[in-house]
Amino acid sequence: MSVRDVVRSNADRYLGWLREACSIPSLADRPDDLAATAAWVEDKLGSLGAETRRLTYEGAPDALLCEIGEGERRILVYDHYDVQPVDPVELWTSDPFSPEIRDGAIYARGVADNKGDLVARIAALEVYQEVRGALPVRLKFLVEGEEETGSGSFEQIVTRYADDLHAEGCIWEGAGVDHAGRPEVVFGAKGLAYVELVHRGLKDDQHSSRAVIAPSPVWHMIEALATLRAPDGKVLIDGFYDDVRAPGEREMALLEALPFDERAELERLGVDSFVGGDTGLELKRRYYFEPTCNIAGIVAGYTVPGASKTVLPKEALAKIDMRLVPDQDPHDVVAKLRTHLQARGYGDIAVNLLGAEHPVMSSPDSAIGRAALAACDGVFEQAPAVAPMMIGTGPMYPIAHTVGMPVVSPAGVTHPASNIHAPNENCRVEDYLRVIEYTVGWIDAFAATEA
Amino acid sequence: MSVRDVVRSNADRYLGWLREACSIPSLADRPDDLAATAAWVEDKLGSLGAETRRLTYEGAPDALLCEIGEGERRILVYDHYDVQPVDPVELWTSDPFSPEIRDGAIYARGVADNKGDLVARIAALEVYQEVRGALPVRLKFLVEGEEETGSGSFEQIVTRYADDLHAEGCIWEGAGVDHAGRPEVVFGAKGLAYVELVHRGLKDDQHSSRAVIAPSPVWHMIEALATLRAPDGKVLIDGFYDDVRAPGEREMALLEALPFDERAELERLGVDSFVGGDTGLELKRRYYFEPTCNIAGIVAGYTVPGASKTVLPKEALAKIDMRLVPDQDPHDVVAKLRTHLQARGYGDIAVNLLGAEHPVMSSPDSAIGRAALAACDGVFEQAPAVAPMMIGTGPMYPIAHTVGMPVVSPAGVTHPASNIHAPNENCRVEDYLRVIEYTVGWIDAFAATEA
Repeated sequence: MSVRDVVRSNADRYLGWLREACSIPSLADRPDDLAATAAWVEDKLGSLGAETRRLTYEGAPDALLCEIGEGERRILVYDHYDVQPVDPVELWTSDPFSPEIRDGAIYARGVADNKGDLVARIAALEVYQEVRGALPVRLKFLVEGEEETGSGSFEQIVTRYADDLHAEGCIWEGAGVDHAGRPEVVFGAKGLAYVELVHRGLKDDQHSSRAVIAPSPVWHMIEALATLRAPDGKVLIDGFYDDVRAPGEREMALLEALPFDERAELERLGVDSFVGGDTGLELKRRYYFEPTCNIAGIVAGYTVPGASKTVLPKEALAKIDMRLVPDQDPHDVVAKLRTHLQARGYGDIAVNLLGAEHPVMSSPDSAIGRAALAACDGVFEQAPAVAPMMIGTGPMYPIAHTVGMPVVSPAGVTHPASNIHAPNENCRVEDYLRVIEYTVGWIDAFAATEA
Repeated sequence: MSVRDVVRSNADRYLGWLREACSIPSLADRPDDLAATAAWVEDKLGSLGAETRRLTYEGAPDALLCEIGEGERRILVYDHYDVQPVDPVELWTSDPFSPEIRDGAIYARGVADNKGDLVARIAALEVYQEVRGALPVRLKFLVEGEEETGSGSFEQIVTRYADDLHAEGCIWEGAGVDHAGRPEVVFGAKGLAYVELVHRGLKDDQHSSRAVIAPSPVWHMIEALATLRAPDGKVLIDGFYDDVRAPGEREMALLEALPFDERAELERLGVDSFVGGDTGLELKRRYYFEPTCNIAGIVAGYTVPGASKTVLPKEALAKIDMRLVPDQDPHDVVAKLRTHLQARGYGDIAVNLLGAEHPVMSSPDSAIGRAALAACDGVFEQAPAVAPMMIGTGPMYPIAHTVGMPVVSPAGVTHPASNIHAPNENCRVEDYLRVIEYTVGWIDAFAATEA
C-alpha cells in the first residue's frame, strides 16, 4: 500500500489520537492536565519505540525529548503540548475540550496550535514503520509545555540539555496552508525587543494653567518618541540598522515567487496604502526584511473621551515593540535606544526591557529545508509558498544558534480560518491527514539528501 | 464708630450669616438646595433694601440680579452660590455642610469659593448703611448657580439680560491673600481652547508584526503632536501668536513689583528649571503673558505597566488644552490648529472642540481698578500684589466684552491653605472680617473717583 492509502485507511484511528490529545485541557493554570498531556505524548511515542526522557527545569512544566529511528543523521522536531486559554468560552459552538467534527473540520482548543502538527507527526511514525519499516534517520521530538505563556524557561532548558539536542536540522511547529491552498514553508522568525518607556517628571499632577512654566513630562515623552521613527517607517535610533543583513539574491528570488494579495490586505486594514507607499516586490521586501518600531501603547493624564478636565500630568508611559531582523540583537538594540535618548537630552526617560527574542533565518538550501520543500510535491496540489521568515516572533534562537542547526517551519495543519488563539479553533480533517503524509515525505526526502 | 469697629462688634452676627450660607449644600446635583441657597441670598439682600430678580435660562439654576444703592454710577458684583462636590468626603475633619471654626478658620464646603466673598460683601452693605448711610453708588449683585460645573449657561444669560447688567466696572469673585499676607488684586484671566484630537486609522487592532506595512495611527498622532510645540514651550501652530498682545510698560511694571518665589515653586513641582529655562522678570512675563499648548491626556493601545502585549492599535486620542492671552480668540485658534494639521498631512485627525473661553485683561487704571487697589491701604498690612491676569480661566468675557466694562478680582477671603476644590476647605475668620471692611473701602473709593 502507498503512504497515502495507509493514512486514509487509518484516518479514523489517527483522528482518534487527535481527539484524545485535544480532550486534555493542557492549560497553563492546570498543572495536572499539563502533566497528563505530557504523559499521553510520552506514551504514544514510547509505544512506537521512542526512547523518552524528561527535560526538567525549576518551575516549568517538563519538556519531553523522545528519540526514535536509526542512523547517523538527526532531525529535531519542535512542538508544544500546552494550549491557549479558551476565554471567551461562551463564543465556542462546542466545548473546547470535547473535540467535534463539523463540516470537515475538527474543533477543539489546541487542535491547530499545535497538537494537530504534533499528533500528525506521531501518526506519521506509525505509517512510516508500516509502509517502509524502521526510520532511516533519528527523529528527536522536543515537546515543551510553556509555549503559550512565552516559553519562559525554554532558553534555559535548551542550554542545560544542549548536548542532547544536536541534529542536522530542526522542524519547527508548522506553518499552514494559505487561502489559495498553497502549503507554506518558512525558514525563520523575526526577533523582538519590547520596552516600556517611563517618565515621571513632576512631583504631582498640576492644574494645567501651570503648564506655562512647569515642564511637561508628556511633551517630553512625545518629543523623545518623535526622534525614534520617520513617517515612512524608517527607525531613527542611532545605529539601529548596523547589523541588519540585506536580503541576498536567493531571498529576493523567494520573495518574487511569493504571492501577496495587496488589495485584500489594504481592505482588511482599512487603509489606502502601506507604510512608505510601497507596492510589489519592495513591499514584500519590507514585509519580511524590515525591522519595526511600533508603539503598542501610550498613556498619560486624563483620557476620558468627550470630557474636558484640564491637567498637566506628572508622568507618561509608552510601550514599544521592535520586530528585529537578522542579525540584529535585541539587547544591543535596547542599549542603542538608551544611548540615542541620552544623546538627545532624554536620558531621564527610563527604558525598561520587558521582552527579548533574537531573529532567526535559516537557508532554504539546507538538507532539512530542501526536504521540507521537496516533500510538498505530490502531497499538496500547489507549489509551496516559501517565506524567508515569519513576520512574528518565536523562541527559535536557542535551537538555531545555541545548539546550532537550520530551522524550518514546514506546511502544517492550520488554514486561514483556523482561529488560532480564538474561539472555535479548528483544523480541517483533510489538512491533518495531508500533514501525516507530508511528514513521511520529508523524512524520506531528508534521508535521501546528502549530509 | 469706625467701619472696623462696626465689623468687629458684629463679628459673630456676620460669621453667623456665613455659617447659614454654608449650611446649605448647594451642589449641582441638589436642585432644591441650590434653590434654597438662591433664596437665602435673595432674602438677605432684599432685607437690606435690594431689589431682587431672577435671571432665568432653560435648564440652568436661576441667576440672581440684586440691585442696591443710589446715584448714577454702578458696580456689577459677580459671585456664585453653588459649590464644588465634597468627595472624598472621608478626608474631611468635620462635616462639609456643618461649618466649624478651628484654629481661627471656618471650615465648610464653599466657604472660600466663594460664599465667603459673597456673604462678606452682603455684610459690608449693612456695615455701610450703619456707618455711612445709603450707598452712594448702585451695586448690582449678579450671583449665578452654575459656576462650579463650567458656567454653561452664563454667556447666554448675560446676552439675554445684557441691558440690565451695564455698569462702570465689575468686581469678579475674589482673589486672595498670598503666603506673605499680601492682598492679591487681579485684572483678568487667560482664555482656554480645549480640544480632543482623535485618529482612527485602521479597521481593527492588529498584531504588532503587521506594523511593518500597516500605517500606525499612534505614530501618526505622535508625529502630528510633535509639530505643535517646541521644547522651550513655544507653540508652533501656524499663526498662533498673530493676535497676542505683548505686555506694555504698564504691565511689565506690575510684573516687576510682583513677588514670585522661584525656589519654592521649583521645589513644589519637583523640577530643576522652568520651561525655557526662564528666571526673574522673563519668567514672570512668561507666567502671565504666554499662552500654552498642554497635553492633558493621551491614550492608545495597551497600557498595562510591566506587561508586554504586542499590538498595533487602531486609534489614538489626545486631549489638548491651550491657555490663551489677549487678544487670542479660542475659535480662531482652533481653526488655525485645523489648518496647521491639514497643511502637514494630518487632516485625517479629527479636532473636536470641547471648551472655549476668551481671555480678558482689564486696565488697573479704571475707576474700579483704582478703587480695588486703593482700598487695600489701611485694611491689609501689606501693599497689594497686583497681577495682570489669573493664569487660569473664568467666564469673564461676556461681562468684560459682551456687556463691556473693566473687571477686577479684588482681594478675597482665600489664603494659600484654603483647600479650594479639596477636602477641609476653609477661610480664616480674620480674612473674612477684613474683606467686609475692604468692601466698604472699595465702595467708598469708587464713589470718590471720577466717572
